[in-house]
Amino acid sequence: MPKERFIVIGAVAAGMSAASRARRLKPDMEIIGFEKTGAISWAACGMPYLIADKVKSADNLVHYDVKFFKERRNIDVLLYHEVKKIFPPQKTVLVGNIKTGEEKEYTYDKLLIATGARPLVPPIKGIELKGVFTLRALQEGISIKEYIKTNSPRNGLIIGAGYIGMEMAEAFAAMGIKVTMVEKMPNVLGTMDDEITQVVEEELKRNDVTLIKSSGVTEFQGNGSISRVLTDNGLTIDADIALIGAGIRPNSEIAKDVGIELGKTGAIKVNERMETNIPDIYAAGDCAEAYHLILGRNVYMPLGTTANKQGRVAGENASGGNASFGGIVGTAVFKTFDLEVGRTGITEKEAKAEGIDYVSNIIQDESRAFYYPDRQEIKVKLVANKKTGMLLGAQMAGHEGIAKRVDVFATAITDKMTARQIGQLDLGYAPPFSPVYDPILIAADELQKKLNV
Amino acid sequence: MPKERFIVIGAVAAGMSAASRARRLKPDMEIIGFEKTGAISWAACGMPYLIADKVKSADNLVHYDVKFFKERRNIDVLLYHEVKKIFPPQKTVLVGNIKTGEEKEYTYDKLLIATGARPLVPPIKGIELKGVFTLRALQEGISIKEYIKTNSPRNGLIIGAGYIGMEMAEAFAAMGIKVTMVEKMPNVLGTMDDEITQVVEEELKRNDVTLIKSSGVTEFQGNGSISRVLTDNGLTIDADIALIGAGIRPNSEIAKDVGIELGKTGAIKVNERMETNIPDIYAAGDCAEAYHLILGRNVYMPLGTTANKQGRVAGENASGGNASFGGIVGTAVFKTFDLEVGRTGITEKEAKAEGIDYVSNIIQDESRAFYYPDRQEIKVKLVANKKTGMLLGAQMAGHEGIAKRVDVFATAITDKMTARQIGQLDLGYAPPFSPVYDPILIAADELQKKLNV
Repeated sequence: MPKERFIVIGAVAAGMSAASRARRLKPDMEIIGFEKTGAISWAACGMPYLIADKVKSADNLVHYDVKFFKERRNIDVLLYHEVKKIFPPQKTVLVGNIKTGEEKEYTYDKLLIATGARPLVPPIKGIELKGVFTLRALQEGISIKEYIKTNSPRNGLIIGAGYIGMEMAEAFAAMGIKVTMVEKMPNVLGTMDDEITQVVEEELKRNDVTLIKSSGVTEFQGNGSISRVLTDNGLTIDADIALIGAGIRPNSEIAKDVGIELGKTGAIKVNERMETNIPDIYAAGDCAEAYHLILGRNVYMPLGTTANKQGRVAGENASGGNASFGGIVGTAVFKTFDLEVGRTGITEKEAKAEGIDYVSNIIQDESRAFYYPDRQEIKVKLVANKKTGMLLGAQMAGHEGIAKRVDVFATAITDKMTARQIGQLDLGYAPPFSPVYDPILIAADELQKKLNV
Repeated sequence: MPKERFIVIGAVAAGMSAASRARRLKPDMEIIGFEKTGAISWAACGMPYLIADKVKSADNLVHYDVKFFKERRNIDVLLYHEVKKIFPPQKTVLVGNIKTGEEKEYTYDKLLIATGARPLVPPIKGIELKGVFTLRALQEGISIKEYIKTNSPRNGLIIGAGYIGMEMAEAFAAMGIKVTMVEKMPNVLGTMDDEITQVVEEELKRNDVTLIKSSGVTEFQGNGSISRVLTDNGLTIDADIALIGAGIRPNSEIAKDVGIELGKTGAIKVNERMETNIPDIYAAGDCAEAYHLILGRNVYMPLGTTANKQGRVAGENASGGNASFGGIVGTAVFKTFDLEVGRTGITEKEAKAEGIDYVSNIIQDESRAFYYPDRQEIKVKLVANKKTGMLLGAQMAGHEGIAKRVDVFATAITDKMTARQIGQLDLGYAPPFSPVYDPILIAADELQKKLNV
């Protein structure tokens, strides 16, 4: 009797988490990962730091290589192998070897789609010029790093003022490149509220980044390689390197093609076991949706942590276990230059869009005791349900002490704590770490004053 | 008809929080604070940093002065006034003016005892020598700072390896003083578990601090001022400055004398409204107990945050409001040299002493992504209830990223989350702030493996 086989499509965060988890639970299972690129199990979030030369080599971003998975975990990973089609009735996948052109069918007992996402590339004239990049595959990160090294660009253009744009602005600046950001929307950072994006814009300005909002790039110009861009509001901007950070789209077509249901977001619909609507086929990571505990529905919010967790759940269930993905509360943090920014739950804009009866408040405080050196300003914006007092969201920005405070709010939101309860939390205090009333407590107390519950 | 009068005994954290809160709720109330020292509303936790010269002047530690309270909040604070006795039946207090010797009775409608605590001073021979200090009143901090400036001591002795001892070791070292710590118990930091105290001991060693455990000082020797100490295990140690940090005791005698009930801890027993057993008399801060949510009983764990919160609750209730103190979960953090240490909930030692059926686990991880520069090792020890999986306690140590992670655990513990739930938290991730699986999640997951729930 042949061994049970678990096939994983895509061998990065979700895929290799699933494979490793399945191996731990089922030592006998055959596990194969197909990866269409040459890189597996690597840290995508590290690319801005690779480009900024804080991380010297792309190898430093790789957790484990093919050899490790084969020898230590008995997992086969085939590089440059692309799964072209799934045949659910036959429980097979058609796999193409990108290097040889050879195709082969593999049977599966359990299948995980962890195909990730791809950058959204607007159809801009001149996009084929050298020096115009997207940033998704490891090879793209390596290419940008090499391009900077070889060409020493002086003016960098970034399309899109989201997380990646913000991290790449810092990276370009670290390499001596003067940065211009062009954002189609009237505000940076998507749904984040204005009081917080204001702080981010100040940080960009302080670091000599030119931000052009409500504007799109219409053309890249140059002789072989990019030298300037044109915008839809008539600007001509010098740029000898450009990064398109205009968002990503889930690689969900392979699923859709065989009748696997997608959500409204275009990503693969999954239940809490990471199962799709077709038996024995799971999906996880940047190609899949995630259940949002505050919104009460699936959303598309592709992040590395979620990919890892979802992959693990899928791997556990694919190997006979019974795991559930706990859902997300929309937590995200990033750093741009010296500023830390974070959010969890929903913003005021989102609460409004959802038609929720909410109250919100913003406070400014400091990261350390009022007499302790090097304290930094911290802004905290909270949103709560007006009827129940339950915290719905928190946003923070400041030059230190943001990321883990956001996690306190994420924990409180997950457990449906009210502003009143949060204001009473017994948080740690020592002068180097916070004021005697942590900004978390102040923010909750001040919000509570607007509540009648 | 005379105004209602609220008298506050002791005008530091709890006292002035109460006075300020009462004023906000009752603009008409007469509010008087009696303070036996010359300093009010100052930050006691800042003293080690005053001595280390990170804070230049004692004035920097003062939130607000007498003038501010009078002019801005219409609160009278009388310095160098000691409340000598309370007469509950008459609702009066007898107050002595320390400078003039004059005594006067004041009536009260509501009374708050916020008398704080005093250092425990072991009866050691030679304790009267110059250069032997305790650290509680602001004047003591100032005296130590001046003594160091005037005498440039080279060898500092610290009795007691608790939080204050740890912070003062750093402070002495910052002033060029070689430190020896002498601790009576076989371990440092009271009830903290060995895996964590081990890290602290390594940090002390790395910073050239000599730690002598299971040992007590029997004599201070010197000609007018201290020059050496003798220990009960026969050592003679050069020391031209000494700090006694052997713990503190609540100033609860004034309460006990008139029949106010004390807890087993010796501190004043209070309910969640901060009421004592005598009507209209409240207690808050370092003279009072606090309800411990995990232990389910009152404990004595005097900390600045708790004092402020309890004071506010007392002030609200004294002025006709209806506030409750939310209780503590035993959270405490401190820094010694470059090491951050924190705890929340109960330790393994405490779980054992309580007879709780528990599991515990310790992990080591890093503060940032595995490729991000300057990441630091982090140790996380967790304790959970074996039957329910509910987290009971967390202890952490590392060179960054400890304090606010402890707060995540404090939040989770307050809301009775299980290890499984904590492992699923949607915490923020970006490479400068944590690995993709935060040490919090790893610690919870690893603990979960020892649980069958």
